[in-house]
Amino acid sequence: MTARRPSLAVVGATGAIGGVMLQILSEHADVWGEVKLISSPRSAGGKLVVRGEETEVLEISEDVFDDVDVALFLASDEVSRRWAPLAASRGAVVIDDSAAFRTDGDVPLVVPEINPHASRIRPRGIIASPNCTTLALIVAVGALHAEFGLRELVVSSYQAVSGAGCDGVTALREQLSMVAGTELGTKPGDVRRVVGDAHGGPFAAPVALNVVPWAGTDAGDGWSSEELAIRDECRKILDLPSLRVSATCVYVPVIATHSMSVHVRFENEVTVDRAHEILATAPGVVLYDSPGAGDFPTPADVVGTDPTWVGRVRRSMDDPRALELFVCGDNLRKGAALNVAQIAESVAAEFPRS
Amino acid sequence: MTARRPSLAVVGATGAIGGVMLQILSEHADVWGEVKLISSPRSAGGKLVVRGEETEVLEISEDVFDDVDVALFLASDEVSRRWAPLAASRGAVVIDDSAAFRTDGDVPLVVPEINPHASRIRPRGIIASPNCTTLALIVAVGALHAEFGLRELVVSSYQAVSGAGCDGVTALREQLSMVAGTELGTKPGDVRRVVGDAHGGPFAAPVALNVVPWAGTDAGDGWSSEELAIRDECRKILDLPSLRVSATCVYVPVIATHSMSVHVRFENEVTVDRAHEILATAPGVVLYDSPGAGDFPTPADVVGTDPTWVGRVRRSMDDPRALELFVCGDNLRKGAALNVAQIAESVAAEFPRS
Repeated sequence: MTARRPSLAVVGATGAIGGVMLQILSEHADVWGEVKLISSPRSAGGKLVVRGEETEVLEISEDVFDDVDVALFLASDEVSRRWAPLAASRGAVVIDDSAAFRTDGDVPLVVPEINPHASRIRPRGIIASPNCTTLALIVAVGALHAEFGLRELVVSSYQAVSGAGCDGVTALREQLSMVAGTELGTKPGDVRRVVGDAHGGPFAAPVALNVVPWAGTDAGDGWSSEELAIRDECRKILDLPSLRVSATCVYVPVIATHSMSVHVRFENEVTVDRAHEILATAPGVVLYDSPGAGDFPTPADVVGTDPTWVGRVRRSMDDPRALELFVCGDNLRKGAALNVAQIAESVAAEFPRS
Repeated sequence: MTARRPSLAVVGATGAIGGVMLQILSEHADVWGEVKLISSPRSAGGKLVVRGEETEVLEISEDVFDDVDVALFLASDEVSRRWAPLAASRGAVVIDDSAAFRTDGDVPLVVPEINPHASRIRPRGIIASPNCTTLALIVAVGALHAEFGLRELVVSSYQAVSGAGCDGVTALREQLSMVAGTELGTKPGDVRRVVGDAHGGPFAAPVALNVVPWAGTDAGDGWSSEELAIRDECRKILDLPSLRVSATCVYVPVIATHSMSVHVRFENEVTVDRAHEILATAPGVVLYDSPGAGDFPTPADVVGTDPTWVGRVRRSMDDPRALELFVCGDNLRKGAALNVAQIAESVAAEFPRS
């Protein structure tokens, strides 16, 4: 018998995350057999290059999932809600990057470095990949949890505008062109007045020369949906249903790579030396922590790379069980396409090779 | 007898904070008698307008403080360390905006909304004004402390580049001119390469299209001086020597106005409704908290105003004694010149009026 490589479908191939996925598929070219690229009727019909070959973009339909072993969904919540169960009913294992199924009790939420085994139990045939903000955080925090026992997270994000999609990037670039070379930013409302007519994008306030403490939709009691997602997803991935999590999500004028300031309280006392040892060897983590020498992660250095970078590791001066961390992760790579690809490759390994 | 208005000296009149102080003195023109403007030899000799009058800028010397009732120091730590005790020895009450005396046990650290009485006990004749980061935070947190009893603060800052002085502003403006209109910000190191030859300013990494998690100098054990200053100063102002404080200070590409995400744990249970009532009536605070309607403070709206703006008030979902807040305060006004002016006016009221 010859080895059969599983077949793959990529839904949302023409989007921003889809573009990153095609790069990753080309880098890991020997995993998959046939690769189908799929999009909405609006974007279908063109061709994209994957693994060096021009490949037609097919319109989404039920039939397109026939003979597909693994289907990646890199589109909107709405597309996933409608089409992912149909793809699964045709026999594909669905790996979904949207928020549609992340809190579904019958859908595992998987980060391969943290809970790889969870992907084997998938009653609906669907595996979910976490929010980009959770992903930048969980790889580092999960590694520390294994030794010290996690009790509480207080997270403040510095989120890149690409977390709000291509519209977010367009909005920041247009606004930057309007404020660069000016004296704006020192008088009440001056930035808002000047960028008021520009592409507002998905933000409720200017994002150039500003920060915007609101991400997602209104989730009640003052919380944004993104803040509650971090709480729900950390609890689910780490299987810690009573973990305390308080998150505040803030957009900053950065194109790609989310950063987070994280206060982590553990069950046991911690030391910076031991935390450094754990982080230096944790899969998917780069420790970059010599701040006096200028070595700390920033989005400008982390963007385009795969790992979560961790620096500014300090033990709280007033609590020997608490650490402060500053973490950066590219929201389009590990925060989206890469985590989905990692899950997909672990599923591919389930298929008989001969 | 006629009323005698106290005389004032402004050291550092030609600097960025000095400029804001001259505006404030012109707005409160009836408080002071003679106003002397003082600077280093390098900047002395020119004239500046204060209270509508051209006023010569005098070179700093011991004699210049003769007949000065109140001396404001708006210059470097070094200038304050050398000259403030000399000014005090000539009989002036010194109000110092530098870090030189903030942790001195014989120098009160004063925020008029929080601990006004502390300014009366000044064994060295010097009163210190807090760091701009502390000031944006303490007015709001202090008001809540009075009712709920403060136990712990976890603070993550989004600091404006003007907190690092005029050099910080120049660096950001130059870097913005280089990145605007480009596709930078998505490839490893692309921003750093392009702005590498620009004015680096006081930052250890690019600050355009980036965030920089380091403010001040290396204070040991991984902490920056700015982070420890927030802890020391909050404890001193609130007279809570065992308050738990963990701060992470991060520069963002904003010209002026510091923002902070604050997790506040109290001794007693809190409600958002009662916190809203307290913040809505606290002196020096504006409550702006209807996020579903887009009402939350951002630097672009707060810059140029006097109060601390507070929004995003939430009770922790997992701890009925904890609140999350997002606060913004103009680091050049309340964060520097305004707080000094407020202290000075309270000292002026000590002088006999007839």
